[in-house]
Amino acid sequence: MPDNQSAASLNYQLHYSNRQTPENISYEEAFSTKEFRKISDIVVASLEQYLQQIDPVCGLNLTEPAILIEKARSLMTHESEEIAAFDETRLRDIIELYTKTGIQVHSKGYMGRQFSGVLPLSGIFDLVNATVNQPSSFYEAAQLPNVAELIMQNELNKFIGYTDNSFAMVTTSGGSLANLTALLSARNYKYPNVWNSGLHRLHENAIPAVAISENAHYSIKRAIGIMGIGEDQLVKLPVNGKNQIDSSKVESCLKKAREQGLRVFCMVASACTTDTGSFDPLDELAAIAQEHDSWLHVDGAHGASLLLSEKHRHKLKGLEKADSFIWDAHKMLFTPGTCTLLFYKNKERSYGAFRQEASYVFEKQADIYTSLDSGEQNFECTKRPVIMNLWVSWAMHGKAVFSKKIDHLCHLANQAWNILLHEGDFQVIHEPQANILCFRYTPANLDLQTNKHFQLYIRNKIKEEGRFFISKVEVNGEEALRVVFMNHEIEMIHFRMLLQEIRKTGQEMIISQTNIQHQAIPISQ
Amino acid sequence: MPDNQSAASLNYQLHYSNRQTPENISYEEAFSTKEFRKISDIVVASLEQYLQQIDPVCGLNLTEPAILIEKARSLMTHESEEIAAFDETRLRDIIELYTKTGIQVHSKGYMGRQFSGVLPLSGIFDLVNATVNQPSSFYEAAQLPNVAELIMQNELNKFIGYTDNSFAMVTTSGGSLANLTALLSARNYKYPNVWNSGLHRLHENAIPAVAISENAHYSIKRAIGIMGIGEDQLVKLPVNGKNQIDSSKVESCLKKAREQGLRVFCMVASACTTDTGSFDPLDELAAIAQEHDSWLHVDGAHGASLLLSEKHRHKLKGLEKADSFIWDAHKMLFTPGTCTLLFYKNKERSYGAFRQEASYVFEKQADIYTSLDSGEQNFECTKRPVIMNLWVSWAMHGKAVFSKKIDHLCHLANQAWNILLHEGDFQVIHEPQANILCFRYTPANLDLQTNKHFQLYIRNKIKEEGRFFISKVEVNGEEALRVVFMNHEIEMIHFRMLLQEIRKTGQEMIISQTNIQHQAIPISQ
Repeated sequence: MPDNQSAASLNYQLHYSNRQTPENISYEEAFSTKEFRKISDIVVASLEQYLQQIDPVCGLNLTEPAILIEKARSLMTHESEEIAAFDETRLRDIIELYTKTGIQVHSKGYMGRQFSGVLPLSGIFDLVNATVNQPSSFYEAAQLPNVAELIMQNELNKFIGYTDNSFAMVTTSGGSLANLTALLSARNYKYPNVWNSGLHRLHENAIPAVAISENAHYSIKRAIGIMGIGEDQLVKLPVNGKNQIDSSKVESCLKKAREQGLRVFCMVASACTTDTGSFDPLDELAAIAQEHDSWLHVDGAHGASLLLSEKHRHKLKGLEKADSFIWDAHKMLFTPGTCTLLFYKNKERSYGAFRQEASYVFEKQADIYTSLDSGEQNFECTKRPVIMNLWVSWAMHGKAVFSKKIDHLCHLANQAWNILLHEGDFQVIHEPQANILCFRYTPANLDLQTNKHFQLYIRNKIKEEGRFFISKVEVNGEEALRVVFMNHEIEMIHFRMLLQEIRKTGQEMIISQTNIQHQAIPISQ
Repeated sequence: MPDNQSAASLNYQLHYSNRQTPENISYEEAFSTKEFRKISDIVVASLEQYLQQIDPVCGLNLTEPAILIEKARSLMTHESEEIAAFDETRLRDIIELYTKTGIQVHSKGYMGRQFSGVLPLSGIFDLVNATVNQPSSFYEAAQLPNVAELIMQNELNKFIGYTDNSFAMVTTSGGSLANLTALLSARNYKYPNVWNSGLHRLHENAIPAVAISENAHYSIKRAIGIMGIGEDQLVKLPVNGKNQIDSSKVESCLKKAREQGLRVFCMVASACTTDTGSFDPLDELAAIAQEHDSWLHVDGAHGASLLLSEKHRHKLKGLEKADSFIWDAHKMLFTPGTCTLLFYKNKERSYGAFRQEASYVFEKQADIYTSLDSGEQNFECTKRPVIMNLWVSWAMHGKAVFSKKIDHLCHLANQAWNILLHEGDFQVIHEPQANILCFRYTPANLDLQTNKHFQLYIRNKIKEEGRFFISKVEVNGEEALRVVFMNHEIEMIHFRMLLQEIRKTGQEMIISQTNIQHQAIPISQ
C-alpha cells in the first residue's frame, strides 16, 4: 500500500467506550430537519476532504475482511433501547473508512473497470433523490422524473435516429435488468401465449433459441437461463480477428440451428463487448435478423455513449434498426450506479415484457397523467428516479460535458495502444475501438509451461501492491491484462509507470520461479 | 391545490435567454472538487429550505405533463458544443420544481403509499455512495459495503432466528428483483437441469407450478411469467376473512393441483400483503410446504420490519422456517429506494439462482477476499452499495430509531380503525395488522347503481384537490379506500380532517349525480 496516511487511517482506536457519547435523542429528532442540516454539513466536508487528499497514483487498499469487520464493528453504537444521537467524529470515521477502503476511482492508478468518479453535479443530485424519495414508475408519485424521461428520450434520439414519437425509452436499475427486460419483450412478442402457457406447455415444433456472440456479457446468458429458454438453446455466433461477430458466418450458423430443431427468435449484438470493447456490425446483423424474423437486441451498456461523439458515432451504425438496445448512463455518462436506458424501436412493444394486475397501483383507464406511468414497462414497482442525475447534468452543463470526456478517454486508449506496439516485451491484443485495451506481458525469459497463469498473477499482485488497479480477462481462452480508461486525468506517463510495475512484478515472479525450480529439482530426484 | 406559494412557484419565467449565463467551463472543471463543494452547498441549502417550508397538510400538486415539460425545458441550457458552468439560480429552480411537484411525503396529508420521508442520515448517505461510487457485487470494489452486509445479516438475524453461519443474506435493488431471485433459486433447486435444458425440454411428467395467495404482490405473478413457468400454472390459495391464506384449505388445493398434473414446487406467503397489510400464517404454511417438498418463500417486503418490534414480532412467527424471504429497507426502515434484503435459510441455496462465467469479473478460485463477493448470488453486475444507508443508520442511531417509529405507525392505524368503527357512514374493512387500513365511504344516500366507482372517484378527486393523498385498492373485487401511515407526524386530527374531506367530496358527487338524473329523465322519456 503506497499511502502511509491511509494505512494509518485504518488503525482506529475508536471503540465507543473511549468516546464521549452524545445524549440519546427521540426518533422525532432523528427524523428532523435540524438533523438533516447538521449531518449534511459533516458529510459534505468529509467528502470534500477526501476528494482533495486523493493519492495521485493509487489503486486499492485491500484489507482482510476479518480486520475490516472488526473496525466497522468498533464504529457501531451500543445495543440499546434508546436512540443514539449521531456522534460527529464517528460519522467522519465511517466515511473515512468507506472512502479509504474503496477503489480509488479518482486516482490515476485506477484503470481497471467501467465505473468512474462521477460528474459532481450528477453524484450530488442523489442527495436530492434520496431526500424527496419519489418512486418513478408512476407519474403521480414522481412528476418531474417522468417528464425528464420524456425529454431525455428525445434529446438522445437526436443521436440515435429512431422515427419521432414511434419509439420508447424506459429507465431501469442496471444493464442486466434492461437486457432481461428486452429479451422478455422479444420472447413474449414472438410467442404471444408464453406468458400464460409457460414454456413447458408451449406447443411449438421448433425449440425457442437465442443467438449471441461468444463474447456477449454474462447478463445475456443469465437472461436465457432465467427466462426458461435454457442455456443449451444458446446459438453461439463466431467472431472475427477484431472480436466482432463475423457477419459472413451468421447465415450458416442460423441454418445449422434450424436443422437442429431450433428457432432463433432473437439475436443479441454487443456495442461494445465488455472484454475488449469491440463493436459488432449492427447494420449487417439488422439485415440478417429481419430476414430471419428475429428480434435484434443490442447490448450497448458501455458503448452506446459513443453516439454522443462526432468522431466515434460511426461505430454504432445501424443501431436505429435494432428492435431494442440498452445504454448505461452509469458507465460513460458518469452518473452514479445505476441508471440504464432501454430503448425500443417500436413503442408498443415496450409494453410487452410483463403483464400485471394490481389494483393498488395500476389504473384500468389511462388519463393524461397515468399515460406517462412506466410501471407496466419496467420491472421495478418502486424505482429510483435514476433519470434525474442524467437529466440535471444534461440540462445544466449540456451534452458536451459527456462527449468531450468520452473523446478524451478513447484517445487515451489509442495512445496506450501505440506505446505497446513499440514495446517488444508486450503483446497488444487489439487496436482499441473504445476506451478498453487488452494486452499481455510476454518477456523473452517467460516460460509458459511454468507460468500458466502469469498474466493473472501479475494482475493480482499489482492489485495487492495497491499502486495500480487493472483487470484481467480471457481473450480466445487465454488470460490477458485489461485496462479501461475512465479517469481523464490519466496521462501516458501513468500508463508507462504501469508498464514498469508490470515488468518489475513479472520479472520478480520469473526469478523466484527459477529459484524454486533449482531448489525443487534435488528434492524430487 | 392548497398551497398558493407552490402554485406560484410553477410559474417560472426563467428561460435561459433572460438570464445572465455564467461563462463556459472545461470538462475538467465540471469534474473538479471545487465544483463538488459549490454544488453541494447549493443543494443542501435548497433541501433544507424545502424541508422547513413544507405545507403541514398537503397531498400532491398534480401538474399536466405538457405544462411540466415546458417548464422543465425552460430550465435547460442551450444546445452547444461548449460546457455551460452551472447556474446557481437555475439549479435552485430545478430542485424547487422537483420537490414541489412530488408527493409530499413529509406532510401530514400524505397517507397513501409505502414509501416515506427517509431518515435524514440514511438519505444523506446516498451522497457518499454516489461520490465514492463503489459497486458492491465484488469485495475488491466495495470492501466496506460487503463487510456491512455481513454485519447487518447477523444483526438482523437476532430477530429472525436462523441458525448462525448457515443462512445467507443478499442485497438487491428492490423487492421485485428479490422475489424473482428467490423464486429462481427455488426453481433451479427443484429442477437442477432447467437452467441448461430450459422448460420446453424439461422431461417431467408433472408441470411445474407455484402456489400463491390471491392477494400476493404483482411481482410474484410477474416472476412466474418471466421464469417461463406461465401464469396458468399459478395455484391460487384461498384467504380467510382477515385476507390471510386459509391454511385449512391449502391441502385440498394442493391435492386438486396434483390431480390436474401440476407439481407445486414452491409456495409463496405474504408478510404482509400490500393491499390490506395481512400476515399469512407462516408457521402452518411452513409445515405444509415441508410435507409437500415445496420451497416456502415469504414476501416480507413491507412487514418483515415488524420483526424489530417487541409488540408486533409475533405476526411473523414461523418466518425462520421459510426457505427464503425478502425485506425492503426502503419501506419500513426508512432508507431511500431501493434496498431489499433477501434471506435464505440455507446459505448454499443462495448460490442457486444464477449461473455464469465471465472472466473479467469472476474468479475460478475464491480467496479470503473473493469469497465475500455476492456477484454470483445477486442479479446485478454493477450494484449500488444499498446496504450502506441502512448499516450507517443502524451503526450510528441503533435499532430503536426504527422500532419506535414502526410501533407508532401501527398504533396510528389502530387508532384510525377505532375511529371508523364508530362512524356510521363509513365501512371499515379490517382490523389493521400493520400500518395499512382499508375502508369505504358508504353514506345512507349512496346509490351504488348510479355510483359504481364511488370509492375510486373519491380517491381521485381528493388527489386532485391536493390536500390529502390516499390510495385505492380492490378488496374481494370491490373498490375501497386505503391509507398507509408512514409519517409519524400524523395525528388523529389529520385523519378526521381526511374523513371530512371524503364526506364533502362524496356528498358533492351524490348531489351532482342526483341533479343529472333529474335532468336526464325528461330527455330519455
